[in-house]
Amino acid sequence: MRTIKFSIHQTMIQTELAGDLRLKWDRIQKAMQQMQADGCLLSVDVNLYYTTGHIFNGYFYLPAEGDPWFFIRRPNGLEGEQVIYIRKPEQLPELFAERGLKMPEKLLLEGDEIVYNEFMRIQKVFQPKEIGNATALLRSVRSIKTPWEIGQFRISAKKHTETYAEIPSCFRPGMTDLEFQYEIEQRMRKNGSIGLFRSFGANMDIYMGSVLAGENAECPSPFDFALGGGGPNPSLPIGANGTILKDGTAVMVDMAGNYTAYITDMTRVFSIGKLSGFAYKAHQTALEIEHRIEETAQPGTPCAELYNLAAEIAGREGLSPYFMGTKQQAKFVGHGIGIQINELPVLTPRSKEVLQPNMVFALEPKFVIPGIGAVGIENSYLVTDTGLEKLTIFKEEIIELY
Amino acid sequence: MRTIKFSIHQTMIQTELAGDLRLKWDRIQKAMQQMQADGCLLSVDVNLYYTTGHIFNGYFYLPAEGDPWFFIRRPNGLEGEQVIYIRKPEQLPELFAERGLKMPEKLLLEGDEIVYNEFMRIQKVFQPKEIGNATALLRSVRSIKTPWEIGQFRISAKKHTETYAEIPSCFRPGMTDLEFQYEIEQRMRKNGSIGLFRSFGANMDIYMGSVLAGENAECPSPFDFALGGGGPNPSLPIGANGTILKDGTAVMVDMAGNYTAYITDMTRVFSIGKLSGFAYKAHQTALEIEHRIEETAQPGTPCAELYNLAAEIAGREGLSPYFMGTKQQAKFVGHGIGIQINELPVLTPRSKEVLQPNMVFALEPKFVIPGIGAVGIENSYLVTDTGLEKLTIFKEEIIELY
Repeated sequence: MRTIKFSIHQTMIQTELAGDLRLKWDRIQKAMQQMQADGCLLSVDVNLYYTTGHIFNGYFYLPAEGDPWFFIRRPNGLEGEQVIYIRKPEQLPELFAERGLKMPEKLLLEGDEIVYNEFMRIQKVFQPKEIGNATALLRSVRSIKTPWEIGQFRISAKKHTETYAEIPSCFRPGMTDLEFQYEIEQRMRKNGSIGLFRSFGANMDIYMGSVLAGENAECPSPFDFALGGGGPNPSLPIGANGTILKDGTAVMVDMAGNYTAYITDMTRVFSIGKLSGFAYKAHQTALEIEHRIEETAQPGTPCAELYNLAAEIAGREGLSPYFMGTKQQAKFVGHGIGIQINELPVLTPRSKEVLQPNMVFALEPKFVIPGIGAVGIENSYLVTDTGLEKLTIFKEEIIELY
Repeated sequence: MRTIKFSIHQTMIQTELAGDLRLKWDRIQKAMQQMQADGCLLSVDVNLYYTTGHIFNGYFYLPAEGDPWFFIRRPNGLEGEQVIYIRKPEQLPELFAERGLKMPEKLLLEGDEIVYNEFMRIQKVFQPKEIGNATALLRSVRSIKTPWEIGQFRISAKKHTETYAEIPSCFRPGMTDLEFQYEIEQRMRKNGSIGLFRSFGANMDIYMGSVLAGENAECPSPFDFALGGGGPNPSLPIGANGTILKDGTAVMVDMAGNYTAYITDMTRVFSIGKLSGFAYKAHQTALEIEHRIEETAQPGTPCAELYNLAAEIAGREGLSPYFMGTKQQAKFVGHGIGIQINELPVLTPRSKEVLQPNMVFALEPKFVIPGIGAVGIENSYLVTDTGLEKLTIFKEEIIELY
């Protein structure tokens, strides 16, 4: 086994991640061998971070067997075994030949992540007999977290809950949802939020998470998030929109747990004064859904079954019209988390996935109550060998703000 | 001329942008006619916002002649002439046929923006004889701003400078660059920053802009920004990295002017106590470059000429080794701005572009002084019929912090 060394500005960094990276490469290689692929060429930030612990402008090439290669354009100054500086991908065939590296006949490219013209350029460079989907493979491999990754989630979860404990101190009567959010953001940053919030797929813009107050919770969004909100500007139609936090309304806080590259997801509901009995009942139903899924879920459980269980409890309580939205209802109740907020698996009725040990996902049964706002809960869970471990431990009842 | 109406949740919005949108469509149609294209199908957030004033999940189809069509998946509740709800792009041929809309033989798609698999799916749906690059066309059209867009820049510029006036109050001795940045971010948000910061191209992650203090200014980045910085985390290797703001060092603040969807770009340098004479000299040289370009630039000026003028002045002062970085030097001194921070034109030696009236660009001559930090200036300019108009008016000398 080779170690991977990067040196940045003459400071040699023997990465502490060497073992973790090797574990990930082994899993990717095993998956490639099963599909008779000869190698994958990765260039998208999240996949580079996953496979190298770094983000660079260039390519990571992993053959189905043997050590990976790092073809780097920028930044200057990275050094290490199998690190080669390039100016353009057209140099790769010659570099492969010089190093005795076989050109792949079946090459995997990130077809759901890189733009068409970049894909065509790489295809022309390699001219492989066949191209497979590296995005699908990486998303599948990435859904089972490594011990190091699980450690990163634990760091994020701890800081996430510490920040949520500070949320009541962010409130002042008469403020808007945006003003409330700015205060929460500042506490997030001071607690180490790195700011960035990555998601998979086009047009999934959001900023640090979402605060939904009162009627704004009903507003449908173009995005595939659980709930919507009108947003602060037509160019960002999601989340807080300047709603004044009025007595008798709910404020749902679903701000990011981006304290490491691995994002935890967590929602708590706050109330300005007291809410209607119906809102508390819906919140209790969300908690019941959470508890029932906590009891049921274990390795082997189909994700569709968990969605159906949630929808069934909502229906039994007569809350289907409010479940995961009103005017527009999301058709999932949970989703994998990781370097991106929307990884695999997805807890949706059409899912074919089953839970596996070391998956990490967010469970978010929520109801939108017209005139009041959104209620419900969201926590992040690790799938253990026997069930679920909750990562984001913090009181779950509706918290009254003064 | 038809008006475009969208209604969201029963609130009819007769968009004030109708005239602006029509102007943009006319320009795009003229460009399509010149290249014998029959239509363009747009789905990327920035192009949808540009052409419709909204962001939605779906497609905007503009034929080379006639009115556009809005094919929308989400959000629910949008209404208007030529608005059609769809579930999937495979419905488009039938909808075209029903509406008597000609299927395009030469279709423009966003080949530098949409992912390979999405592009292939659309290609299969339309099976055009020829496909052209909508990204290149839109980037070119978008580089000439409309009166409404210029008004949006003026709003951003005003709030941008107001926020910069508050920066000295963010400083406390002994703080880190990150702590300083958090304070600036909070003032940005309170002044109306919408948070999002859009850029063109893969792997161009940044968070609200960049604060570069002391030696961190030398650190090369993987990204195509003017300067680098180690960043707060390996997953975000750009900008502030926890450097303590030490006496005798410079702090360069290049935080986003994202107060509307149209981002102004502006940099000012702050010093902790006094800097070396060399640093002040380099700063004065940056100001000289700025003034010379302000005098020289007008419609018809080649962008390459402006870069060369900047590099020549830097060279004459013996500052070439520090110009736009040290260990890694950016090969541009300015760039178009708009909905994204890196639009056309680019002020680079290889540019073939010339300035045209109503282009808006940022000019950013900067020097990195080892051991001290980055100095220099950045402002946003509108190209008028006769020269440049500076949009971000604020004192330009190095501002001492106490």
